[in-house]
Amino acid sequence: MTSIELFDTTLRDGTQGEHVTLTAQDKLRIARRLDAFGIDVIEGGWPGSNPKDRAFFELARDVEWRHAQICAFGSTRRVQFAPEDDPNLQELLRAETPAVSIFGKSWTLHATVALGVTLEENLDLIRSSVAYLKAHGKRVIYDAEHFFDGYRDDAAYALETLRAAAEAGADVLVLCDTNGGTMPGELARIVAHVCERFDQPIGIHAHNDSGCAVANTLMAVEAGARHVQGTINGIGERTGNADLCAVIPGLQLKLGYDCVAPARLATLTDLSHFVDEVANLDPVDRAPYVGRSAFAHKGGIHVSAVMKEPRAYEHLEPEAVGNKRRVLVSDLSGRSNVRYKADELGIDLQETSQARKAVERIKELEHLGYEFEGAEASFELLLRASQGEQAEFFRVERARVHSEKGDAHFECSQATILIDVQGTRTLVAAEGVGPVDALSKALHQGLSDFYPCLDDVRLADYKVRVIDPQDGTAAQVRVLVEHRDDVRSWHTVGVSANILEASWQALADGLRYYLLHHATTGSAEAAPGDGAAGDGAAGESPPENEMAAPAAPH
Amino acid sequence: MTSIELFDTTLRDGTQGEHVTLTAQDKLRIARRLDAFGIDVIEGGWPGSNPKDRAFFELARDVEWRHAQICAFGSTRRVQFAPEDDPNLQELLRAETPAVSIFGKSWTLHATVALGVTLEENLDLIRSSVAYLKAHGKRVIYDAEHFFDGYRDDAAYALETLRAAAEAGADVLVLCDTNGGTMPGELARIVAHVCERFDQPIGIHAHNDSGCAVANTLMAVEAGARHVQGTINGIGERTGNADLCAVIPGLQLKLGYDCVAPARLATLTDLSHFVDEVANLDPVDRAPYVGRSAFAHKGGIHVSAVMKEPRAYEHLEPEAVGNKRRVLVSDLSGRSNVRYKADELGIDLQETSQARKAVERIKELEHLGYEFEGAEASFELLLRASQGEQAEFFRVERARVHSEKGDAHFECSQATILIDVQGTRTLVAAEGVGPVDALSKALHQGLSDFYPCLDDVRLADYKVRVIDPQDGTAAQVRVLVEHRDDVRSWHTVGVSANILEASWQALADGLRYYLLHHATTGSAEAAPGDGAAGDGAAGESPPENEMAAPAAPH
Repeated sequence: MTSIELFDTTLRDGTQGEHVTLTAQDKLRIARRLDAFGIDVIEGGWPGSNPKDRAFFELARDVEWRHAQICAFGSTRRVQFAPEDDPNLQELLRAETPAVSIFGKSWTLHATVALGVTLEENLDLIRSSVAYLKAHGKRVIYDAEHFFDGYRDDAAYALETLRAAAEAGADVLVLCDTNGGTMPGELARIVAHVCERFDQPIGIHAHNDSGCAVANTLMAVEAGARHVQGTINGIGERTGNADLCAVIPGLQLKLGYDCVAPARLATLTDLSHFVDEVANLDPVDRAPYVGRSAFAHKGGIHVSAVMKEPRAYEHLEPEAVGNKRRVLVSDLSGRSNVRYKADELGIDLQETSQARKAVERIKELEHLGYEFEGAEASFELLLRASQGEQAEFFRVERARVHSEKGDAHFECSQATILIDVQGTRTLVAAEGVGPVDALSKALHQGLSDFYPCLDDVRLADYKVRVIDPQDGTAAQVRVLVEHRDDVRSWHTVGVSANILEASWQALADGLRYYLLHHATTGSAEAAPGDGAAGDGAAGESPPENEMAAPAAPH
Repeated sequence: MTSIELFDTTLRDGTQGEHVTLTAQDKLRIARRLDAFGIDVIEGGWPGSNPKDRAFFELARDVEWRHAQICAFGSTRRVQFAPEDDPNLQELLRAETPAVSIFGKSWTLHATVALGVTLEENLDLIRSSVAYLKAHGKRVIYDAEHFFDGYRDDAAYALETLRAAAEAGADVLVLCDTNGGTMPGELARIVAHVCERFDQPIGIHAHNDSGCAVANTLMAVEAGARHVQGTINGIGERTGNADLCAVIPGLQLKLGYDCVAPARLATLTDLSHFVDEVANLDPVDRAPYVGRSAFAHKGGIHVSAVMKEPRAYEHLEPEAVGNKRRVLVSDLSGRSNVRYKADELGIDLQETSQARKAVERIKELEHLGYEFEGAEASFELLLRASQGEQAEFFRVERARVHSEKGDAHFECSQATILIDVQGTRTLVAAEGVGPVDALSKALHQGLSDFYPCLDDVRLADYKVRVIDPQDGTAAQVRVLVEHRDDVRSWHTVGVSANILEASWQALADGLRYYLLHHATTGSAEAAPGDGAAGDGAAGESPPENEMAAPAAPH
């Protein structure tokens, strides 16, 4: 089977999308997940463009990547600088990544108008920049920006720019449909033409402005490309990039190329949801392969037919990409998923009745708006509770939160809670910058005498979404909370019409999860989920090592 | 120029999509709009399947269609009935449409398993059904269901089914990728193969399960198809149908086929929004050609370049499809972005010093974590304030929010505010499901006597992110709020370490923005931004008509 190199640019081109903002920590979480999934090259950002991207590469340096090469992105040098003085190339070196991707101009229009250089100067910019980075031991992925537009205007010159990069030692030549306007037929012909002329592997980078990014990518591979760039869920500038969640199964399951191990491919839907959750984006129900509606069948005969002979109504097995068939009236699937998760966590659902009970509870909560994809710790607590495992640790009998605003701003909030730990009832009060922070602090204060290990735990992130429950009597909010200790982070969820109640559920779950894994051992060394999640490779909680956590919010 | 027949199935296959429900009246509104746009055939529904579809055809009978043929959909006869006794074929005749589309089985698997007939019987079902409808004077569009899957399994038989339909007089032979799993290269080869063998026009009906519906449709036309089926915005079962909003401009503007008059094509974006409005669906910002983000540019250098030479960064003129260029305000932005936005809003930044001042303030706020990309209303207020325009309307001197939790849950919250409006100070108290809701209600209550127009305004969405400020002294939260009236929606932002303060800023901005555009006229008819954004064409708030907004959250 011919192998295809997968290059993910979610963290770089993806963040060019409207409404997409990722912190350096968010990026690290996503990168770890991409690495576990089997992505070959992860483009982390443009260190020359902003401090956030520089921070990511600093964090990335301390991570042991299992499979992926981390890659920094930048442009060819500016005409007024020699490579060794060019600020952008210097930033690329400072990122200390094994691979770099640099873009150069293929289109005469861009060279002359946007850069204001001669066509010969442009070739030299490409040549000297690639050569400089090669001399510093980098793997160089050369992005030929606007290649197809350039080729249409002046094919000979567009090919010359590729030749310049190739001769200077570029390891991959990537043809970019930067404006996204190229039609699949023409694109395939051009890719084939280029592949005939170069020995280097050819890559494809497609945008979706014509609605053809996925197809263009697949056609390019059929025409000879062996390196594929895209983003998870197709996020990106304007209409987005080629969606790797559609490209990868297309290449592997339809066209027979080798991209990732089949077991990894079966986590594709999880990966898709994970990225949406971290980026705080609404998942697209209609997304091919990974969308909630992708294998949804609307009632009746169709459904019984699909049960009898799935391939009559489904283009592939949903399980191959980690998705599931849905019957829109009543969801019939699920028990095997829960079993799979339980196995991952080392929870033995011995009896069928136990598994059924857990599934019922999960379905009930999902119906209310809970979502466990981004909240593996809540999911584990729930699963253990359904097996009768006790993990309450504390009970809050009463709580009050009070916030006050003067003429200018809301000042800090106060929370008072009456907490019962191991039979001892204590009244504690705490102040925080906001009501959630006040609650969190009061809770910590009430627990610290009993569970000193919680001193290492802090509230690290907090996300709120308004959701539209199926039977919409009132709008609900879903709160996702991230806690961290010095070693790793874990996520919990709460849902309510009241934002404080939802926050409370998630906060309390977060501490309970930690206590479950630490209170008995009393040691902060045993990492949450470690014993349970095996190597975490395909699980919901990849190991994370986010040392530079922000201060506890609000 | 070769002409392509456009067949729209929004009203039939589109309604198979999850969350898509259209009344007969909705269908009529959409059909009229499709007719005006220049669609050739409008498939209105399956009269044999439900009374709503029958009602549509009754209504459609009384309309004078300018251009479009109305078409009723159904299956070939059932094996136990002769055509004249078949309930489904009789319903098709009763619909009294000039055209009918009927689907038959091309795949041996479906004929034998789903229908339970012999392969020869299946051919006769097709033949006799088509012949019967032709004998009744109908134009017959024959949909070869699962054609590509059938062809892959048994090409000779799949072609035989087409032959049966053709010999019985079918006017168009439509090749359906019903399960949506066919790859573009293979699909194009099969279409070309069929086109060689038949004199009848060949049609294409593609589903998007592999993310290739648009490209598959374009490739099919390049391979010889002359009839194209799809839906507006690609709505439809599972992952949807081929999106005509991407197919039509692709065919006409990229590949040079003749579909609709150019003046009609320039209303495509309106058509897309109209269908979303009637169907009460969220518009997809990232949709090719017609999406809100389709021509959105981030980043300063990029923006100045796009102003200089649009084709350097845009695959076509947005105006050709009735869309418009948008410049996003982001942390990569510079003065040219701000100037561009000010122009759009009709704000005259006469002096360079004013523009510089505005940019400085924006950068300062962005550094604090504000993001104006999704908060055009806050941005406008800010820009106006930087020019000395006053838009305060009210001042809150004091506010208190109180929430309490018993043993079980946080119950509702109370807010008390002391508000000064036009010199009158009032103390108001309100209860809400959560603290933000309580604040929002108190504010509304305090303002409603002075500004009755606010009765039309409701809190529609609310999002919170914890952000990682660059110089991280303390973690901040960013709150994005959406308000709506009956006509449109607008977005505001607030940032603080205290979630209530951030929410407060966004809430107050939202109401101020509305008052700015309504308080003087006292009329809810004047849409926000209208006065400012000229005809609203290039503004951030396209006309929206979202009648069924969710209940106010928390």
